[in-house]
Amino acid sequence: MKVRKAVITAAARGERLYPVADTVQKAMLPVVDIDGLSKPVIQIIAEEAFASGIEEICVICAPGDGPRYQEAFTSLRNNLIESFSSTDWAKEEAEKVDNLRTRLQFVEQTEPLGFGHAVYCARDFVKEEPFLLLLGDHLYVSDLQRQRCTTQLINLAVQEGCAVSAVNPTIEHQIHRYGTLTGKHQPNQKGVYLIDRIIEKPSLSTAELELQTPGLRAGYYLCFFGMHVLTPSVFGILEANLKNGAQNVQLTPALQELAATEKYLALEVKGNRYDLSKKQGLLQAQIALGLAGQAHDETLTSMVELLAEANQRKTN
Amino acid sequence: MKVRKAVITAAARGERLYPVADTVQKAMLPVVDIDGLSKPVIQIIAEEAFASGIEEICVICAPGDGPRYQEAFTSLRNNLIESFSSTDWAKEEAEKVDNLRTRLQFVEQTEPLGFGHAVYCARDFVKEEPFLLLLGDHLYVSDLQRQRCTTQLINLAVQEGCAVSAVNPTIEHQIHRYGTLTGKHQPNQKGVYLIDRIIEKPSLSTAELELQTPGLRAGYYLCFFGMHVLTPSVFGILEANLKNGAQNVQLTPALQELAATEKYLALEVKGNRYDLSKKQGLLQAQIALGLAGQAHDETLTSMVELLAEANQRKTN
Repeated sequence: MKVRKAVITAAARGERLYPVADTVQKAMLPVVDIDGLSKPVIQIIAEEAFASGIEEICVICAPGDGPRYQEAFTSLRNNLIESFSSTDWAKEEAEKVDNLRTRLQFVEQTEPLGFGHAVYCARDFVKEEPFLLLLGDHLYVSDLQRQRCTTQLINLAVQEGCAVSAVNPTIEHQIHRYGTLTGKHQPNQKGVYLIDRIIEKPSLSTAELELQTPGLRAGYYLCFFGMHVLTPSVFGILEANLKNGAQNVQLTPALQELAATEKYLALEVKGNRYDLSKKQGLLQAQIALGLAGQAHDETLTSMVELLAEANQRKTN
Repeated sequence: MKVRKAVITAAARGERLYPVADTVQKAMLPVVDIDGLSKPVIQIIAEEAFASGIEEICVICAPGDGPRYQEAFTSLRNNLIESFSSTDWAKEEAEKVDNLRTRLQFVEQTEPLGFGHAVYCARDFVKEEPFLLLLGDHLYVSDLQRQRCTTQLINLAVQEGCAVSAVNPTIEHQIHRYGTLTGKHQPNQKGVYLIDRIIEKPSLSTAELELQTPGLRAGYYLCFFGMHVLTPSVFGILEANLKNGAQNVQLTPALQELAATEKYLALEVKGNRYDLSKKQGLLQAQIALGLAGQAHDETLTSMVELLAEANQRKTN
């Protein structure tokens, strides 16, 4: 099994949006990446996928956003060439953007029928292969020097030849925000579970009854981390759910069904997630990526100097 | 004397641009402001000006940007209403954006003839009044709880009835990046100087010879902080410089001439500047504004948690 395709969902509308930026603007926000270069969020997500062996990516976007992304990337590429024409690195960066553009396609989710429907929109792109599913507003920093989060996930999926979802032990008062699951810990495989039960945003009492995972720290539950390797069978399940005329088809119920019909694992991925749709999310992602990469020293220096300035200010 | 008008220069092209964003995108980057709300950079700058008594603002922008700004603000306003239609704060924020739009005008700098020329483009807007000049890629945080940086500057200008430039004692190895000046310290007025000599980006040896300011810490010089209250006489001086057919008219030589012809002061403004055209600039501004305002606790918490995470990661 090889995981060559990735799907990035970036169609979220409504409350998940900062007021100050629409879907394309948010995806194009510049963040200094681990390599020390400033890039649009969506390029950072795509490059992590490429680094894990992905060859083609499909972005599920809001109506009208497809051409706007193309325009934004063209503009980015031209900016690089025009502003920095004399430098080699600019030419390299522009080539990376060209490369990105040829490997990215955009599919519009024409009706807001839920996150599960957004994933379903990737069906024609994915066809009959397993695929990596990523959220367009999440950035990740791996705990492991040489293994990105996506690589950890894909490696297990390929090794086991099945679907795997990334999970993160999450403290109980946070679980109402995530898909939460439990499963059977696999012998001799640290952090790997055969998924049994998944509930979207459970109450604490429900979780206490149905989602306890032995071996986890007390008061902690396994929650979706936001990235999955899924088999194409998920599309059949989603299609059935959509045929019922549902107006809000989620992914989690489809994944519960997947767990009932085939081997489907959960992996405790070693790393941290940053949700850019949250108020402090972008700043946290920038600091985390800064501290984790080439810009470590400058980032740490900035933080210390700014804390000193702020402290000085308090005493004025 | 009353300072009712402000000019924001946002036409910078070329190397000062991040590759990832053009002039309008950079000005519209969201930053969480002191009041805890996420807003475009240019709105933060404009609101600081309004809070200091400014009534109308002219943005000098790159060719074609005028309509793009209008579109961006319209989009922002609509986003606020559509995404958060049930909340009062969204309606308030949308009104602020409407208010902003009616008080902002855009004038395009059709030819890239230098920063001085960009300022000159504001001549018809300013007419015969003193005006506040701000840089579109600088954010400021005041040291003083109740007096923004712009307020400190305008107060002195109105009190003395003359032009005043904000300055900042700067360590010698940094002065090659700024307009650097010296002047006569005014008796009984802390941090106020009658400007004598200004040199743009001087070498250290030039500064040692010509720009020493008695009373400053050894190895420190007074450098422009990026904000000025200028009298309309500066336009006459710039016009003369432009008539010579110069292709790159800077502001600093015009300010030197201003110092020779009328009372023109420098004020050590109490605060910090964040230059968004520099790599770490945006991140630093976000952290500084975060620590200085409503989001203080969340920002500090984020920083501490992220440092702990990064430290944990190092030991893996």
